[in-house]
Order: sequence, then C-alpha cells, then structure tokens
Amino acid sequence: MNDLLQARYGMPAPTPGPADDSGDIGDVGLAHDATIATLLGHRSVRRYTDQPVSAHALDLMVAAAQSASTSSNLQTWSVVAVQDPAAKDRLSRLAGDQRHIRECPLFLVWLADLARLDAVGARRDLKRDGLDYLELLMVGVIDAALASQNAAVAAEALGLGIVYIGGMRNQPEAVAAELGLPPRTVAVFGMCVGHPDPENPAGIKPRLPVSAVLHRERYDPAASDGPTEQYVETMDRFYAAQQMKTNGDWAEHSLNRVRGPEALQGRDRLAEALRQRGFPAL
Amino acid sequence: MNDLLQARYGMPAPTPGPADDSGDIGDVGLAHDATIATLLGHRSVRRYTDQPVSAHALDLMVAAAQSASTSSNLQTWSVVAVQDPAAKDRLSRLAGDQRHIRECPLFLVWLADLARLDAVGARRDLKRDGLDYLELLMVGVIDAALASQNAAVAAEALGLGIVYIGGMRNQPEAVAAELGLPPRTVAVFGMCVGHPDPENPAGIKPRLPVSAVLHRERYDPAASDGPTEQYVETMDRFYAAQQMKTNGDWAEHSLNRVRGPEALQGRDRLAEALRQRGFPAL
Repeated sequence: MNDLLQARYGMPAPTPGPADDSGDIGDVGLAHDATIATLLGHRSVRRYTDQPVSAHALDLMVAAAQSASTSSNLQTWSVVAVQDPAAKDRLSRLAGDQRHIRECPLFLVWLADLARLDAVGARRDLKRDGLDYLELLMVGVIDAALASQNAAVAAEALGLGIVYIGGMRNQPEAVAAELGLPPRTVAVFGMCVGHPDPENPAGIKPRLPVSAVLHRERYDPAASDGPTEQYVETMDRFYAAQQMKTNGDWAEHSLNRVRGPEALQGRDRLAEALRQRGFPAL
Repeated sequence: MNDLLQARYGMPAPTPGPADDSGDIGDVGLAHDATIATLLGHRSVRRYTDQPVSAHALDLMVAAAQSASTSSNLQTWSVVAVQDPAAKDRLSRLAGDQRHIRECPLFLVWLADLARLDAVGARRDLKRDGLDYLELLMVGVIDAALASQNAAVAAEALGLGIVYIGGMRNQPEAVAAELGLPPRTVAVFGMCVGHPDPENPAGIKPRLPVSAVLHRERYDPAASDGPTEQYVETMDRFYAAQQMKTNGDWAEHSLNRVRGPEALQGRDRLAEALRQRGFPAL
C-alpha cells in the first residue's frame, strides 16, 4: 500500500494519516485492502495483447457501471461496445488517429443519454421540458462518468487495462453518425479496454500533493500554490526517469493545452456540437 | 456475487455471461472478487452512526480519488471536506434542507476547478484562453466525477457509506460564497460520508436491464423500449417490497422530475450560475 502511495505522489516519503479510531488499513481485512490497492494502482494502459475481452468481463464491467450512483435513479447514460476493427479504425481517426483505439480489442463509448427518458415520456405523453436545460446535460455527463469509472475499476480488478479517450469530443456529430446515436445523446468520452501487454508495461503517474486538491472547511486559493510548484519538480523527475519527451515542464505543457481555441482539437465548438445533438440550452 | 447481481437487476434470474476464455470470476482470485463485490454492493446511505470518519479513511479516499484518470493529467478538480456542524447545516439548507448533510460526520464538496491551472499560468504569464470554453468546464466536471467515484468505492471498501448530493447545484453562487470558492471553480455535487447506521440499513436499488443501457457496435434506439417498460414493473415490485411511497411509478416520477424548469430545484438557471462562477462560454 505504501509503495502505491509513494508512486502516486512521486515522493520518497508519503504521508499516511494516523491510524486512529478506525484503525489501520490492515484492520478492514485483506479483501478490502485489495479494493484500495486496485484503486491506487491505476495506470492508463495503451498497449494490449491480442487476447479478446471476454463477454463475462464486459458483463461485470456493465453491472459495476450500473451499480454506481445515478442522479434520482434517472440512469441518463448508455454505453456502446465497439469491437468491429473497421469501426474502431474510423473512431480512431475521429479522435486524432490514436492507435490504441484501433489496437484495443474492446472500445467503449460512454454516452450522456436523455433519449431513453424522452422516449419513456413520449410513450406516456408526459411533459418533459426540463430535458432542454443544461442541468440535465450535466446529469447525463456525471451519470456517465460515475458509471464508467466503476467499469474501469472492475476492469482493472479483472486484470484488464483501460485508458479514457477524451477525443470522442473532437467531432461529436461525426461520432454520433458513426454510432447511429439519436438526438439527446452524445459521446462524453471513450474507453479502450484490453489485456495489458507485458512487453510494454505502463507506470503509475504521480499526481499533485494532497494539499493542492484537498481543502478543509473552506477553499484556500493560496494553499495550492506551493504544492503545485513542488509538483512541477516531481514531474520533472518522473519524465527524466521514464525518458519521456515533453513539450516543456508540467506547467508549460499543461498550459499549452489550454492556450486558446486552436489548441482544443476541435472542442472549441463543443457547445455548438451539443446543440446539434439535441441539447438546446447551449 | 450472483446475489448481488440479482439485487442489482431486481430479477429472479440474473443473466451472467458465459465463463469463456478469461474464465469464471473465481479464477481472478478472492481479492479481485472482493473489489467487484464492493462495486456491485453499492447502496446510497443516508443514516449514520455518531462515529467520525477517521483521518486515515479520508486520506485513502483522496488518494483513491487522485488515482483516477484525469484528462491530459490536468487534474482540474478539488474537494472541500466540511466537518463543522454549522457549515453543514448551512449547506444542507442550500441543498433543499436534506437532513443527511447535517447528520453525516463528513461532507465532501467536489469541485470542477480551473482556478489552479489558471494560477499556474498567471505565475508564468502564459496564455490560457482555452479555459473560457465549455470543453474545459466539461473536463473539470468529468475529472471531478471520476475522482469522486474512486473515493466512493474506497469509502465503501473501508465500511463507510456515502450518498451523492446533486443539490449542491441548486444555488451554486451561495455554495461558492459559503466555501470561499474563487472564480473558475464550481461545486459539481456533494457527498455525505459516514458509518452506516445498522438500525437503518439501506437496500440495493434495482437498475435497468443491461439490454437498456448496453448497445453493441451501434446504438439501437428501439432496443431499450421493452427493457425500460419491464423495469417500470421491476420498480413497482421493489417499491412495494420496501413499502416506499412514490409519486407514481418509476416512469411517472422520473418524468415528473424533468417536467419543466419549475421542477429543477433552481437548476434551470445553472448556465447563468456557471457564467457567474467564471465559466464564460455558457
């Protein structure tokens, strides 16, 4: 556990909390310890073996996804499982030509889906003007994200590897056409799934110090300045150790991604694309 | 495992996939089985004992949250941990007076946070016009949701119970004032955390049949009609068994929640609230 925390924060000395009234992690049992270890051990996997993802694994991923919280039990999400190589190739090109979409045996496209609820209402001739508001798009996006993350954890518990694909938002209308999506649905992100290639293992990427993201009682804007600058140095060490070429340090290449609309890979027109997908509030 | 699947789908006969090339779930080992069981066993917990959430548990929840995927490693989320009873009382009233926010020992407010990246750029005088686009708000919302869901799974693995609170979006400006949030941050949702009260156990709520949410290769709008109507009957049986009073069946009370702007608990003005929080694209 300490090894995983150390890798996650990229620090020689992680700072575990005191083992107080609820005791040390060991007290909650090996099985629960394994769940925490699965969570802490995440790394994005972009290289896979040829082994397919079993139907059983997909069933458990979807059951886990459906077990996540969902706003008012509305369940405003769906997922499209794509295995056809030609379709994955087309989706890859719509997402900036990412080879892992072509190479993964299973590509999941997670949708914010208000169409199902719309259809339920249409069958009963019930009013549903609330679907047109930004709030319901948010509910769909959040529902899809909570569901997908449970599926990701389930996949990793089963020994599979995953990577999220934000590039599904580069050309939402073209993705919708490719997948036959009805109005009031939109791809929020994709997810490559496969058996990790042991020849090309992925490493755990360090994250910001806890003190940069966790605030106590009230948000303290100044509290994250020091830890964030410390993180730039942590990532310098990480890039050097992994022999990764980056476009400047973490601060520079992160800011480069948001320097302006031209850096957003087409997503500067996301509001317009969402309107076209049947989310009129935008 | 089968018991959990049966509860999740509210069906006498769950339909596990064939144990094919990757074998039955038993083959991946007890520890991984426990992770899947944690995921499938989720239920929203709104009644807690007086026992506080340990610092150690919060540390592990945050480490799990930080271990989730994050778009381009930008980490555009933060969390505020609220334990002060008076503050929880105020936040409860801002969320439609939900008693479990007052009663839980730990209330987490999950934020989409572009302020930290903005500050990094400001210190280096780097261009960051992309932060003004809807895409970056989406990145923040998705980052926050993936992180929070990992924290939820960690909490449940540690024996804690949680419930998400969408009501943090009812009055985003007032929540921001309460928590001292800077521009370019917004509360996406809250999360009550505590030790489940054994006197008031929560049950697993059935979800839609798999065939209503999982599409193969392409989205089939008609595929979910039958399973969704079947689910209305499943929920009728669930409400009766739980002696739950509902405002009509699942279809009726779900549609009632989206009947129009007046049903959105103030969230019909979410776009305006987000503009005021420093997300100008809306």
